Amino acid sequence: MDKLKVGVLGATGMVGQNFLRLLANHPWFEVVYLAASPGSAGKKYADAVAGRWHMHGDIPPQFRNITVEDASQVEKATGKCSLVFSAVEMDKTAILALELEYASQGFAVVSNNSAHRNTEDVPVMIPEINHDHLNIIPEQRKRHGWTTGLLAVKPNCSIQSYMIPLFALMKAGYTIDKMIVTTLQALSGASSPGPAAIDLVDNTLPYISGEEEKSEVEPRKIFGKIQGGKIVLDDSIKISAHCNRVPVTDGHTACCSVQFAGKKPSAEEIIDIWRNFTALPQELKLPSAPVPVMDYRDEIDRPQPWKDRDAGNGMAITVGRLRKCNVFDYRFIGLHHNTVRGAAGGAILTAELLKAKGFAG
Amino acid sequence: MDKLKVGVLGATGMVGQNFLRLLANHPWFEVVYLAASPGSAGKKYADAVAGRWHMHGDIPPQFRNITVEDASQVEKATGKCSLVFSAVEMDKTAILALELEYASQGFAVVSNNSAHRNTEDVPVMIPEINHDHLNIIPEQRKRHGWTTGLLAVKPNCSIQSYMIPLFALMKAGYTIDKMIVTTLQALSGASSPGPAAIDLVDNTLPYISGEEEKSEVEPRKIFGKIQGGKIVLDDSIKISAHCNRVPVTDGHTACCSVQFAGKKPSAEEIIDIWRNFTALPQELKLPSAPVPVMDYRDEIDRPQPWKDRDAGNGMAITVGRLRKCNVFDYRFIGLHHNTVRGAAGGAILTAELLKAKGFAG
Amino acid sequence: MDKLKVGVLGATGMVGQNFLRLLANHPWFEVVYLAASPGSAGKKYADAVAGRWHMHGDIPPQFRNITVEDASQVEKATGKCSLVFSAVEMDKTAILALELEYASQGFAVVSNNSAHRNTEDVPVMIPEINHDHLNIIPEQRKRHGWTTGLLAVKPNCSIQSYMIPLFALMKAGYTIDKMIVTTLQALSGASSPGPAAIDLVDNTLPYISGEEEKSEVEPRKIFGKIQGGKIVLDDSIKISAHCNRVPVTDGHTACCSVQFAGKKPSAEEIIDIWRNFTALPQELKLPSAPVPVMDYRDEIDRPQPWKDRDAGNGMAITVGRLRKCNVFDYRFIGLHHNTVRGAAGGAILTAELLKAKGFAG
Amino acid sequence: MDKLKVGVLGATGMVGQNFLRLLANHPWFEVVYLAASPGSAGKKYADAVAGRWHMHGDIPPQFRNITVEDASQVEKATGKCSLVFSAVEMDKTAILALELEYASQGFAVVSNNSAHRNTEDVPVMIPEINHDHLNIIPEQRKRHGWTTGLLAVKPNCSIQSYMIPLFALMKAGYTIDKMIVTTLQALSGASSPGPAAIDLVDNTLPYISGEEEKSEVEPRKIFGKIQGGKIVLDDSIKISAHCNRVPVTDGHTACCSVQFAGKKPSAEEIIDIWRNFTALPQELKLPSAPVPVMDYRDEIDRPQPWKDRDAGNGMAITVGRLRKCNVFDYRFIGLHHNTVRGAAGGAILTAELLKAKGFAG
Repeated sequence: MDKLKVGVLGATGMVGQNFLRLLANHPWFEVVYLAASPGSAGKKYADAVAGRWHMHGDIPPQFRNITVEDASQVEKATGKCSLVFSAVEMDKTAILALELEYASQGFAVVSNNSAHRNTEDVPVMIPEINHDHLNIIPEQRKRHGWTTGLLAVKPNCSIQSYMIPLFALMKAGYTIDKMIVTTLQALSGASSPGPAAIDLVDNTLPYISGEEEKSEVEPRKIFGKIQGGKIVLDDSIKISAHCNRVPVTDGHTACCSVQFAGKKPSAEEIIDIWRNFTALPQELKLPSAPVPVMDYRDEIDRPQPWKDRDAGNGMAITVGRLRKCNVFDYRFIGLHHNTVRGAAGGAILTAELLKAKGFAG
Repeated sequence: MDKLKVGVLGATGMVGQNFLRLLANHPWFEVVYLAASPGSAGKKYADAVAGRWHMHGDIPPQFRNITVEDASQVEKATGKCSLVFSAVEMDKTAILALELEYASQGFAVVSNNSAHRNTEDVPVMIPEINHDHLNIIPEQRKRHGWTTGLLAVKPNCSIQSYMIPLFALMKAGYTIDKMIVTTLQALSGASSPGPAAIDLVDNTLPYISGEEEKSEVEPRKIFGKIQGGKIVLDDSIKISAHCNRVPVTDGHTACCSVQFAGKKPSAEEIIDIWRNFTALPQELKLPSAPVPVMDYRDEIDRPQPWKDRDAGNGMAITVGRLRKCNVFDYRFIGLHHNTVRGAAGGAILTAELLKAKGFAG
Repeated sequence: MDKLKVGVLGATGMVGQNFLRLLANHPWFEVVYLAASPGSAGKKYADAVAGRWHMHGDIPPQFRNITVEDASQVEKATGKCSLVFSAVEMDKTAILALELEYASQGFAVVSNNSAHRNTEDVPVMIPEINHDHLNIIPEQRKRHGWTTGLLAVKPNCSIQSYMIPLFALMKAGYTIDKMIVTTLQALSGASSPGPAAIDLVDNTLPYISGEEEKSEVEPRKIFGKIQGGKIVLDDSIKISAHCNRVPVTDGHTACCSVQFAGKKPSAEEIIDIWRNFTALPQELKLPSAPVPVMDYRDEIDRPQPWKDRDAGNGMAITVGRLRKCNVFDYRFIGLHHNTVRGAAGGAILTAELLKAKGFAG
Repeated sequence: MDKLKVGVLGATGMVGQNFLRLLANHPWFEVVYLAASPGSAGKKYADAVAGRWHMHGDIPPQFRNITVEDASQVEKATGKCSLVFSAVEMDKTAILALELEYASQGFAVVSNNSAHRNTEDVPVMIPEINHDHLNIIPEQRKRHGWTTGLLAVKPNCSIQSYMIPLFALMKAGYTIDKMIVTTLQALSGASSPGPAAIDLVDNTLPYISGEEEKSEVEPRKIFGKIQGGKIVLDDSIKISAHCNRVPVTDGHTACCSVQFAGKKPSAEEIIDIWRNFTALPQELKLPSAPVPVMDYRDEIDRPQPWKDRDAGNGMAITVGRLRKCNVFDYRFIGLHHNTVRGAAGGAILTAELLKAKGFAG
């Protein structure tokens, strides 16, 4: 199989670097186009990120000598690739416009940014949950007059560790009424440079700008339905989120209390549902789809960021400590790797699904 | 005023050291009796703790040369002091017996241990909340045949930062129906040596043995009523707690979601209640009673352990981020110093109250 | 005694905040003038630092309502105070000019900045070591035509923990030939915001810009002699420094290997010299002068930042682990509080010395 | 090629777990024998380590059901494997005896323990440096009357990051006269559980028991010569080490100042030597031999534990910041992964060399 040629917009930033790290040996995608701000344009990638490559391991050698383009010059991408991952760091208005421009020029755009998450016909994808939201793409194309272009985004990095466990229960026939969740979030989730070290030695921070709102609203779109060319938010589930920043490099932890509406599963049943949950990405054997999707740990003190974030190459969700809640029905802990499942890896899985379903390629 | 002579049982352990640090310049109490395990008995205090004094600052000089006694030889304390703080580290059965023995020999025993927290006629004290639980002491004395002896304990270190805010609202006439709380707890709350460093670098732990149960049950006793010689648990409030260990030395953070029963205060009213809350310890001008009791911070990212744990010399509660909850009525963050307000300092405040009310002295 | 009226230039930055924290209850100085950048000018201090007050404890109440002036408008200070502490954060040229301007307008300027450390007639002060360098002030005044103005600076924060131990040995008649030192430096030593948290979780940094050069050169000026109106660098001692940044909030550790020239003291003698070292600031009973100057700890694992940085209210040096070196004569560990002894506190001690010697007041 | 059957003694401890992690997919070795203390004997490996498996990633599935034997019953290993890795945690006398017993029963013993490092005919191996020390094995066998048995050990985990750089220079014809080194060592280097978390939050420790002595003596054996059936220590190089514990999980940093005897290379030459250094393990293409052996980084702030410890799968040495020293000739920073190159990985490389040279198999 010929690999699909892809590009990365915002290739020099932290998220862009994560895309390159994860795409370095991808079986379906070949990175041929790197774009960033005008200041990086014209430089070889290795020079453009000199002194700010922050990944474990070095720059993959095949990317070192690619000349970085100015991301705003869409024509530079034309003919080179057909799908771009967007990780640009600009203001929201500029991102909204740039991503639309790439889509209008025929590119499948899979974005890590939050800008288009509220755009009504742009799906916010967790492929195991709402793969059928890709059915909005024909309507999206029709509205814009695009033929091959499209726009899909991944949600905020704070929600994956509870969204997939909740969805597994919903798919098994149970209805979630409400959830109160407190997250302990890793530093890599912050835009670079993120919090200062002096604020996170012997300390945690009880606030992350914008994070609680996103954690409460985006799930409703992901659980929503396509109706009249829009994705209509689900109104049946209420989520309240407290988001803390903790001195952890990678891996978001979520302490969840959940109330069901109607019939309630037993604890054994829940664990069984989680351990056996599988979805379309697994059936399609998408390269980044983890098997199993969820790892339920029996140990009393798991999941933990250091030990569990790399489960399924960073794409699996680790769950543990399912127990009765004094106030709601159940409590549990979820954990996922925020820059893999929660960011670049989640976007790549979406791109794989787009390709498998014939929307890109 | 002559100072009351006091002793510390378990003086060589971490909690014992904290008692000594906080009692070093106490205006009402003078430490004259130090007791520990037989292995320390007969040594000067400075020798007994050599290599394991873990406080900020050195051993207060006045304690260095006190000869440590064997805590089990109660007669060694007789005539020296009339009140003892208990911080012994033994198994539960041994603590139950030892603390009773001191009380039966006429000592007022104020304990940091959990052993007697479930004993029906032993009050679990947060003096600002349940100072009237000291009224059980005459019944306690009667039942045991004690004349001057008594037994009072302080609760688990995880709850102070939300108990006082909740109580302030209750005192203002509101009824708390339920609360879901997630704590981020400091390392000094663990029994020495506590978790290994390798488990808390780039990591947090989602479990602390026994902590969630204590956080859910003890509030019901503190909010309870004396009835028929017992303290009867309050049944009106339901609390569910998730307890995490984080790499912070001192200072427990609590992320709270609260539902009222009946009428609900406005946010402005809540903040006003908190800022103006005062109680008997403040009226009695007990030396360790913080004024104000609670510090509500307007900054969006407070309270934080590093910045707020020392408020009121470690005895005040810092509260922040009061906001609507998507699921319950309100959310807020509470923080307190776990080894001061949550442990030795809380016990000392209780002893001050005992003295002020004429139960010790 | 009437307190000396003083000002703080750069009062809103981290170093400026430290000055205010340390001057809040100073027995000799009263802060009456606060100046910062034009952006803060005209605001009350509490408003000017809203959201960026980073000290333990709150803004001392007496400073909250002082109106901040534009530091460049020197005339605003005239008549208000006679001594200013400089903690401005500007480029070197601007600092050089601003500090000279204040001195030329008659102010005693005691600076925390590095700008004037290489100015030949400006003393770089560690008062216990080179108090006699203040004798250059008459020559400084004469050269500039100043009558009451003067300029003195404190050295880089990385060197205090070994400079005082070395000097104590020199004062006792021994000659230091060379030293190799590796420092483990705290985060508060970096200009705000300092390193990102993600770079100091599960990590240390082997480089601090400019720090090694300063650590090697400034000692030679402090050990130097006044000659012909200049302070001539000492050439007899050679120092080589490796400077690391570690995830510690406050407290720099220095691992030192020292070679003597000529006769060598015994280990017992060295410890004795250190424990008994005293100097002019102690004899003059300057308010910030620690007694003892140095605390030599016998424990094998001391000094440590958490336990020892606050010795002598952050002004004492803690030393430990004196032992034979396989390559040089001796090895030892030194530690000091970098923002107290190493920065604002060191400058305040210098100001106290200036006042005591009649140069300011 | 048939894989060599191997065993792991002390398989349940941290070092044993590291051996299993690194041997899980080894191309030459197949783990068939796991032994530990009597308490674990008879259990399946997964049960024996339940609750104390501390590696990233789970227990490799092929080891889960192996029945753990009592390490002291050497006969249980007979016929199963011919080489054992020793990671037992016992007192020194017991280790000395046990490892000899296995060797006398015909096993090639490659030990991670320090017990036999001072045994005169036991080589302390860093294969890139002293592969020719394996020539002592025939003499070792002769002295003991062994035919297939042998005993080789790996050195302390603190020295690899400077030993290989120093040796590369020696091999290029330069003589090292002396070195002063300060290490910043990771937590995984301590025996489990290692330091308490509360001692390494906002803190570093300036002392590691036994570490400085080993860091100074073991290099002299590794650089030594076989003479009269013994390995005679090298006397030409003097090393002085300061060893600190820092809050890093994996990766030891060494700040080195080096003095040459005789001619001195230029900085360019040194970097060139380091970048081009290769040795017998690379020539033999041993599976664990890193290529390149050393990675010299040009960035001013490297090496760092988080970014560089996994270079060469944890087997490469990363070097940086070569610069003139004010006191000696040069300074540089070295870094290696202490539990891979510095422990289990270093022992596995030694076993590979033994096999390649025909001493095991």
